[in-house]
Amino acid sequence: MIHHHALRVYFADTDAGGMVYHANYLVFAERARSEALRDLGAPHAELMGQYGLILVVRGAEIDYQAPARLDDWLDVTSEVTDIGGATVRLRQSVMRDGRLLVVMTLRLGCLRLADQRPARLPQRWRAAMERMRQSGDAAGGREWGG
Amino acid sequence: MIHHHALRVYFADTDAGGMVYHANYLVFAERARSEALRDLGAPHAELMGQYGLILVVRGAEIDYQAPARLDDWLDVTSEVTDIGGATVRLRQSVMRDGRLLVVMTLRLGCLRLADQRPARLPQRWRAAMERMRQSGDAAGGREWGG
Amino acid sequence: MIHHHALRVYFADTDAGGMVYHANYLVFAERARSEALRDLGAPHAELMGQYGLILVVRGAEIDYQAPARLDDWLDVTSEVTDIGGATVRLRQSVMRDGRLLVVMTLRLGCLRLADQRPARLPQRWRAAMERMRQSGDAAGGREWGG
Amino acid sequence: MIHHHALRVYFADTDAGGMVYHANYLVFAERARSEALRDLGAPHAELMGQYGLILVVRGAEIDYQAPARLDDWLDVTSEVTDIGGATVRLRQSVMRDGRLLVVMTLRLGCLRLADQRPARLPQRWRAAMERMRQSGDAAGGREWGG
Repeated sequence: MIHHHALRVYFADTDAGGMVYHANYLVFAERARSEALRDLGAPHAELMGQYGLILVVRGAEIDYQAPARLDDWLDVTSEVTDIGGATVRLRQSVMRDGRLLVVMTLRLGCLRLADQRPARLPQRWRAAMERMRQSGDAAGGREWGG
Repeated sequence: MIHHHALRVYFADTDAGGMVYHANYLVFAERARSEALRDLGAPHAELMGQYGLILVVRGAEIDYQAPARLDDWLDVTSEVTDIGGATVRLRQSVMRDGRLLVVMTLRLGCLRLADQRPARLPQRWRAAMERMRQSGDAAGGREWGG
Repeated sequence: MIHHHALRVYFADTDAGGMVYHANYLVFAERARSEALRDLGAPHAELMGQYGLILVVRGAEIDYQAPARLDDWLDVTSEVTDIGGATVRLRQSVMRDGRLLVVMTLRLGCLRLADQRPARLPQRWRAAMERMRQSGDAAGGREWGG
Repeated sequence: MIHHHALRVYFADTDAGGMVYHANYLVFAERARSEALRDLGAPHAELMGQYGLILVVRGAEIDYQAPARLDDWLDVTSEVTDIGGATVRLRQSVMRDGRLLVVMTLRLGCLRLADQRPARLPQRWRAAMERMRQSGDAAGGREWGG
């Protein structure tokens, strides 16, 4: 299952090179996977408020293929590729009109806010992540989100 | 006419105080008035690309009444209150569930990108601004956007 | 006493108009007054950690007179103009080579983190603010910081 | 040669998790390598203004080992590891009190602003990059910057 989140590029996202500032694709990715989790009934603020847990980015690989620009309407996809005890891997992409602009591979870890120690994902978030996991069958991944 | 733009608060918008970082309400306001202008057929990128003009913020007054937080779903309103030759004044507000959080009064100026000199707004942008102007009649302002 | 803080403009601070994004002058101002308070022995993290208090921006007026650009070396000044029980007013300016670019008037409030209620400034922070207060005598303000 | 750039963490850099927002380490890295190039006589604004060229990030790998927090005083190191015709690889790290917090491996490309095509680095920037290249000899890298 590949989740889609659409967003617009504003001045705040760009830099003096006339393109989206490179760090901001990580911001776009955060928005997209937050909406994916929310759509699956596992919003981030609840993870913090009810469980004292937080999902943090532990690693990122970003491949910038083409720039996004002011006023672009972008499609940010999210799919989970691997789920461990306290770790989740995602592949997130930024596209414009079907053209791939940026590909990100992220490793998230679940931490206890109180002491920053790794913690297992609560069942509701784990279930949401499972549903975001890339389908391995011949039919390919289904698409959702909006 | 009051334009409405809805947006979500993500981690990127917040700070270690647990609230939206105060400068980011200006970012929210930029998003909202960009969408208002786009809805009226006057997108910002076209103003730059076709006319070599840019709308810049010349002045801002911000009144912070209550904080927005992670995962909040906010309503950002935009209304034009005054239109001069090369200047426009707007009132923009950020609300959550009908409660006013932040009120901003902004003064925008139209500049030529080449030499940063003030320039008159092209007719299409002026017309859009006129339609965003607050209705002064007894019926009160109409609401639009989404 | 007017505190001075110097900083460089990087790509992250700019936008596609080729200038510093307007909201980022508030970021520059936060850096400058944080360093002013730190220089006076009243760092912000300690206010949060030891007292459970936070200084938040309650109001801002910003007058943009000329733009800062990539690689500019800026001087950000901070002076306290008024101190109340739980409120402080500052005047902060951004200058380049002695030319005034942006003037900000800020109203800060001291809040308890636990319940967001107004709280009196602890003595150490109040004393620091007093020392940042604009001198009203004929001799004019002294300059400090770096 | 390893360049060092020191910076402070402010509220603007943090998020509601109480730590530096993960995308902002890329911002810290941009500041540090800009200062390294400037120290070597190759400032970025001149590359744009005089040559119509820009250095953009084409790829990034980030390994987050421990979080930075509000008021932290960080040391951001920059060293060039490889130089191609239109590409440069750097290793940049963020440290606090000698402890490694975040390691970034970045691939930069030189582009013509006019058409976004790859372009060879001008000699002055190439020479600066050469001087930032990691020393491979037994003596190890020298340290500079401030």
